[in-house]
Amino acid sequence: MQPDLHSREHAVRTLQDFHTFSPLTHCMTNDVVQSFTANTLLALGASPAMVIEPEEARQFAALASALLINVGTLTQPRAQAMRAAVEQANSANTPWTLDPVAVGALEYRRRFCLELLALKPAAVRGNASEILALAGESAGGRGVDATDAVATALPAAQILARQTGAVVVVTGEVDYVTDGERTLGVTGGNPLMTKVVGTGCALSAVVAASCALAGDRLHNIASACCWMKQAGELATKTSHGPGSFIPAFLDALYHLDAEAAV
Amino acid sequence: MQPDLHSREHAVRTLQDFHTFSPLTHCMTNDVVQSFTANTLLALGASPAMVIEPEEARQFAALASALLINVGTLTQPRAQAMRAAVEQANSANTPWTLDPVAVGALEYRRRFCLELLALKPAAVRGNASEILALAGESAGGRGVDATDAVATALPAAQILARQTGAVVVVTGEVDYVTDGERTLGVTGGNPLMTKVVGTGCALSAVVAASCALAGDRLHNIASACCWMKQAGELATKTSHGPGSFIPAFLDALYHLDAEAAV
Amino acid sequence: MQPDLHSREHAVRTLQDFHTFSPLTHCMTNDVVQSFTANTLLALGASPAMVIEPEEARQFAALASALLINVGTLTQPRAQAMRAAVEQANSANTPWTLDPVAVGALEYRRRFCLELLALKPAAVRGNASEILALAGESAGGRGVDATDAVATALPAAQILARQTGAVVVVTGEVDYVTDGERTLGVTGGNPLMTKVVGTGCALSAVVAASCALAGDRLHNIASACCWMKQAGELATKTSHGPGSFIPAFLDALYHLDAEAAV
Repeated sequence: MQPDLHSREHAVRTLQDFHTFSPLTHCMTNDVVQSFTANTLLALGASPAMVIEPEEARQFAALASALLINVGTLTQPRAQAMRAAVEQANSANTPWTLDPVAVGALEYRRRFCLELLALKPAAVRGNASEILALAGESAGGRGVDATDAVATALPAAQILARQTGAVVVVTGEVDYVTDGERTLGVTGGNPLMTKVVGTGCALSAVVAASCALAGDRLHNIASACCWMKQAGELATKTSHGPGSFIPAFLDALYHLDAEAAV
Repeated sequence: MQPDLHSREHAVRTLQDFHTFSPLTHCMTNDVVQSFTANTLLALGASPAMVIEPEEARQFAALASALLINVGTLTQPRAQAMRAAVEQANSANTPWTLDPVAVGALEYRRRFCLELLALKPAAVRGNASEILALAGESAGGRGVDATDAVATALPAAQILARQTGAVVVVTGEVDYVTDGERTLGVTGGNPLMTKVVGTGCALSAVVAASCALAGDRLHNIASACCWMKQAGELATKTSHGPGSFIPAFLDALYHLDAEAAV
Repeated sequence: MQPDLHSREHAVRTLQDFHTFSPLTHCMTNDVVQSFTANTLLALGASPAMVIEPEEARQFAALASALLINVGTLTQPRAQAMRAAVEQANSANTPWTLDPVAVGALEYRRRFCLELLALKPAAVRGNASEILALAGESAGGRGVDATDAVATALPAAQILARQTGAVVVVTGEVDYVTDGERTLGVTGGNPLMTKVVGTGCALSAVVAASCALAGDRLHNIASACCWMKQAGELATKTSHGPGSFIPAFLDALYHLDAEAAV
């Protein structure tokens, strides 16, 4: 079960499918990253929609191509709306993705995420600490930071994938994407991405959207990881710090096809 | 009832009034666009304030020069606070503006917007799908996208204006501003504006603020549309994609007087 | 009780401590500035975490190095969570900071802030209008604007500091930092900072984080004010308006050590 390296050529082809399909992506995400998440999806040609009232979330989860559940600023009313959306997504065969932000540090969201895991997400995306915590192997984690090296979490990710049927993505210096049998590695990116809030959360939204594509979900998700790492590299080259990184990153995502073709 | 073209010279004069008056604009808007909306108003010299607790929203709607109601991430508690603010705004003769985000796709907010329409907004700003849905002429719409061409919605906008007494703004490639009798068209802008979240929502905030000015409201609102389209054009010229468009757009709004004088 | 000028050399040394300690900063802040606040803390090497559900906020306030309470978009559920977090912070000796946004204009948050003041904040950061309102000396204020000159509020800040035991920071053209006995003045900055939403709120987050450092709290907080003013000056030089100021400001914070050494 050693990971294969995902190819950038594959990622370019998947991006063309993504542009063509333009997934309508229902994002139930945290208060900190709403704008950056929407702009990331728009830059990649997807169509984001943030809908959170329980009645509306239920209705919209059936209309959308994909659903994202991110527990970063979870509240009880938001949890109730997320449950309603996930149930409706499952009825309508809308794939949904879980981002278990900071799940290692906080008991309330850990219980909620474990409850959701039983409802069959298409994908789970977290850092090493979060994936270890979901798999019951660590109770650490310093809020949203990844205090565990990503490779350490790969066995836990593979177990979690087999237990839940989800594709599990554990991200860091290398991103690993696994369905429990096959594992792909995605290299690249830049540490500057960790100095900007929301790059991980936005990746989860892109992972969620990529689950709406036809074809092999494992490869589609690895392609999503690849787009974000590639844009991160390009943006680092043209920026002077984390502030100018943000617009440069969105520009790079928007032009990724052309860049990739070079 | 063919639209007249709104002149940019008129928009420049209105902007000088806007700078002088600096409307204190009470924004009850969605979670995704709060920061961009505030920065747009600040760049134009207005004073934004986001106040959402029912008791506070009621108190503040009487202090403010103008009120914006945007239903993008409506919840039941937020709807309750919006009702309180609108009632108080009406008592205090504070003009208020409705942005019926994605009203065609979601039943809960459609009912809420129809309820608010009866409370006499000064202005309503939406895309073609949203205005058609409010007028009861279409139940479509793909979330926040405008799937109907803007000209198709003009007759519905004019009917809605006559029914409600509001100035209705339907925006797209051309913006139409109508009070049901007179109609102004505002041209310009750039498609890149649709690749950034919040340009429409921020326009609604500027429309709301412009309702606080003395003079002909139809022309004041058309001027607001004109400022945003002009800044969009300028920003497109100096940016490399949707990421760098955002700071360039705010810079352009901030310097609009000087640019317009050229 | 005339203020001494805080030295930039001192601020550079404090910044090195800040980088080394990297305070885990629990931010309960308003909906408008979440992303900018997180990016400001990240650019300075701190670790932000936004946690708002009452059960989680209580748990996290004990784990965090520091806690920020900002009442900008206060709601009743948020107030309940803030109370829980402050109580737990006090039990765990986590220093907490209050930003009484627009407290002069709104009665509900004024009562809430007075209630919190009795719970012994480590620091309070506001503009002149807000500090005057907290000290019971003015009921004015136009929302979030500072309508009172900062020097006028210094006596009120000194009284408030003696009454509450907090270090009180009143910010404007000059920032004053006082414990009621000693007062430091911090000069610099640029008026362009007031044309961007969240610079004051983000400063409060940095003030909160600086309360976690060892050493003299008065000087640590004055250093925090100094970093923000210095980054504001640098960003003004390299930006073309309030839009490009935002990325330039975060870049300047990120490189502040190197800049300061010049």
